[in-house]
Amino acid sequence: MAAPQKFLDFIDSNVPKLIDRLAEAVAIPSISGDASRRQDVYKMGSWLEAQLNKFGVKTEAIPLGQEHIEGQVLELPPAIVGRIGEDPKKKTILIYGHFDVQPANVSDGWNTDPFKMHFDKESGRMYGRGTTDDKGPIMGWLNVLEAHHNLGIELPVNMRFCFEGMEESGSEGLDEFIGTEAKKGNDGWFGGVDCVCISDNYWLNDRTPALTYGLRGLTYFNVLVSGPGADLHSGIFGGAVYEPMTALIALMGKLVTQDGQILIPGVYDGIKPAASDELEIYEKLDYSVQDLEASAGGKIAISDDKSTVLMARMRNPSLSLHGIEGAFSGVGAKTVIPATVGGKFSLRLVPPQQPDDIRAKVETYLQAEFAKLNTKCTMKIEYLHGGIPWVADHRHWNYQAAKNATEAVYLRSPDFTREGGSIPVTLTFAENLGVNVLLLPMGRGDDGAHSTNEKLDLSNYIQGTKLLGSYLYEVASITSKA
Amino acid sequence: MAAPQKFLDFIDSNVPKLIDRLAEAVAIPSISGDASRRQDVYKMGSWLEAQLNKFGVKTEAIPLGQEHIEGQVLELPPAIVGRIGEDPKKKTILIYGHFDVQPANVSDGWNTDPFKMHFDKESGRMYGRGTTDDKGPIMGWLNVLEAHHNLGIELPVNMRFCFEGMEESGSEGLDEFIGTEAKKGNDGWFGGVDCVCISDNYWLNDRTPALTYGLRGLTYFNVLVSGPGADLHSGIFGGAVYEPMTALIALMGKLVTQDGQILIPGVYDGIKPAASDELEIYEKLDYSVQDLEASAGGKIAISDDKSTVLMARMRNPSLSLHGIEGAFSGVGAKTVIPATVGGKFSLRLVPPQQPDDIRAKVETYLQAEFAKLNTKCTMKIEYLHGGIPWVADHRHWNYQAAKNATEAVYLRSPDFTREGGSIPVTLTFAENLGVNVLLLPMGRGDDGAHSTNEKLDLSNYIQGTKLLGSYLYEVASITSKA
Ligand SMILES: [Zn+2]
Ligand SMILES: [Zn+2]
Ligand SMILES: [Zn+2]
Ligand SMILES: [Zn+2]
Repeated sequence: MAAPQKFLDFIDSNVPKLIDRLAEAVAIPSISGDASRRQDVYKMGSWLEAQLNKFGVKTEAIPLGQEHIEGQVLELPPAIVGRIGEDPKKKTILIYGHFDVQPANVSDGWNTDPFKMHFDKESGRMYGRGTTDDKGPIMGWLNVLEAHHNLGIELPVNMRFCFEGMEESGSEGLDEFIGTEAKKGNDGWFGGVDCVCISDNYWLNDRTPALTYGLRGLTYFNVLVSGPGADLHSGIFGGAVYEPMTALIALMGKLVTQDGQILIPGVYDGIKPAASDELEIYEKLDYSVQDLEASAGGKIAISDDKSTVLMARMRNPSLSLHGIEGAFSGVGAKTVIPATVGGKFSLRLVPPQQPDDIRAKVETYLQAEFAKLNTKCTMKIEYLHGGIPWVADHRHWNYQAAKNATEAVYLRSPDFTREGGSIPVTLTFAENLGVNVLLLPMGRGDDGAHSTNEKLDLSNYIQGTKLLGSYLYEVASITSKA
Repeated sequence: MAAPQKFLDFIDSNVPKLIDRLAEAVAIPSISGDASRRQDVYKMGSWLEAQLNKFGVKTEAIPLGQEHIEGQVLELPPAIVGRIGEDPKKKTILIYGHFDVQPANVSDGWNTDPFKMHFDKESGRMYGRGTTDDKGPIMGWLNVLEAHHNLGIELPVNMRFCFEGMEESGSEGLDEFIGTEAKKGNDGWFGGVDCVCISDNYWLNDRTPALTYGLRGLTYFNVLVSGPGADLHSGIFGGAVYEPMTALIALMGKLVTQDGQILIPGVYDGIKPAASDELEIYEKLDYSVQDLEASAGGKIAISDDKSTVLMARMRNPSLSLHGIEGAFSGVGAKTVIPATVGGKFSLRLVPPQQPDDIRAKVETYLQAEFAKLNTKCTMKIEYLHGGIPWVADHRHWNYQAAKNATEAVYLRSPDFTREGGSIPVTLTFAENLGVNVLLLPMGRGDDGAHSTNEKLDLSNYIQGTKLLGSYLYEVASITSKA
């Protein structure tokens, strides 16, 4: 059962309206990591709730408690949950998305205001923070709902929605809500859910749709080194005191080699090398080292071999150094010895790595390396957050429906990929609901999520909306035959 | 010839007024390194000029050209020069000070607004940005001028003033002005100057006045490593690309050991170990490792031996890592692979080290170490600024006058010190005018210049004002005897 033509036609004939919808969402700077923007996260949630209601979805704003951020106690933005369709003969699909975004400032190097969506007609690209991560996909669902509502067509499945406003800040509060509701079984918000669909990742390249069945996990650390009581002048104190920055840089330099080898003992324990049939998957993917370098914007691939690069991203752990808090980070030449500096780094994890185990290994290693420095500075390790790696069964009907929908809309088979990033909620749903979870990306590999000049191609937005709608029909079709 | 009693009495009986003067100066946030505060630097210069005029000093605001900062072209704040007294029988003393300050924000950890001076009566401390560096000493000179003006006493020497507003940003434009004027000989602004007095450094400790006859030089670098075209998401790219941060941290880790040993080949060339008579100087200074740790606010001294610590500060080179520009420096856990990162570090130099030679050695070393990394990232080394180290003849009458004045005001002999910081203008005056330059500090070693909660003790301000005035009388006295 393919999607009805009038649904597809509705999307094609309402393109300007759908663009406006995304622009409206982008214009609300719902940055969850910035306390001063918290009101905008609330606002974004209310805006989304109103849209859902308009298209017949019953919603509820779920309070998720409080958090401590930048010395303030703040209410967490509520999760917006919704339901439409109660037909016991239909499958019930749970949709997840997040309406918060990463920070963005023009001064970071944006060509246009990140919170005023810029549609470049020549390239067909829509630039703005959240266009691809994750407001574009959420708008895709709204577009599907609007089409059915306006056309008066019944949806082929029952739908449940769970949209959150804290994904970019560790999904605070959501896990507990999902866990609590899941325990209520059929009486809970997720009662009767047959599978989950999440659109919050990207194609491997800029031409081939993808379905994603694996994610790397994450452990994020802040290693703090302290010495003086306050920042010191390097003229007055340089040479006479132990300097926290020197110690921190030494520690950070012992974590990973330039070619990506992680130096923490035991960190690779249990990770199996790829067998020949697994290697074959990577060789078959529509991908090249040039694709990687194009999306990275530089000739910096770790290898000239496609499979090596793909495995580095999909099935091997990695360690990145993100920056330093408390050191001099401005322009110019400040002659400061910073008093306390925090080195931020994180590891991407793959099965069977577990965050708690990796955390223990990192801490043991840092303690040992710090002791070797023989310094009078002191060290403290903060564990900022963690997420388990995940791999799903891609032979499940949920994936087959998405494959069929992709073939119907894009006239080609999707790449089956594993993703390098972590979307911890994937695991929360998989574990709590015990159902198959599908990652169905809308955007391309070069969209620049979390980066400057984040964009979504109009074709991905429009075809992506059709894909989301078609997926629902393919689910209905494949499960009625089964 | 001691200072007249009525001058000293005037200072003692006008303390609240002198405090207000400093508070008024602190209230103008004349941060030279911040383009958005440029108007405040101009304002501070005008304020200073008006004060000088009020007390009978003829002034001129000298345009110093333009600079490029944060993508803007800005007029440099003019130098404020002045003259009072034209008696050929008197010595002519040139006074230097700077009316710009370092950046400061409450969020850096200040207990009070850095630009609203807070006088804590209990401790006798005046807190605020610029209280000790360098508005306090400038106010000291204004206090001396006001006293003489109001009391109708003639100054014992001719005075020349040179105050600048760009010291904290490399003294842009000033060197050229001084060089040009010096070449004009007696027709220039510095014609007839017999010696220079600069109050822009600090006592070694918090109890013993000091005269300073040496300064370390400086070379400041920004080593830039680039890779991707924009910041990347570590989930998507971590492991698959060469990361600029990993390369930069590796490079920064090869510059200096935790105990302060500089690892750049040839950097120590020509520096002689201290002979026994030089060691004796350090042993005699009124200083302890506890003093250092008290002013640093932490038990982080590089040695338990007083002379070792003093030599590390006064006569040995050092290397400090200041921070990284372009990396993640905020709070929280951003999973970014920064595209271009600039590591800021500087070396403090001592004779016979020369900035150009050290620069060449640093660049050669970094190029070699970068090549060893075998990375596809690229490196660029920016040389931000440099200054030659300096040592003066402390047996000159200029120093003897300051010593006599110290003994008259503080009833004790000053420490003769060398300073770890650089005040490049010292060298500019010494080389261009060919006269003796004296560094006569007003504040204490724990004042926290360039740091949070910068302060000046009221007693240092008041006794320091008396010291500056008395120094002028001692100059007149010692040179008339000679
Ligand atoms: Zn996302
Ligand atoms: Zn994201
Ligand atoms: Zn200064
Ligand atoms: Zn300064």
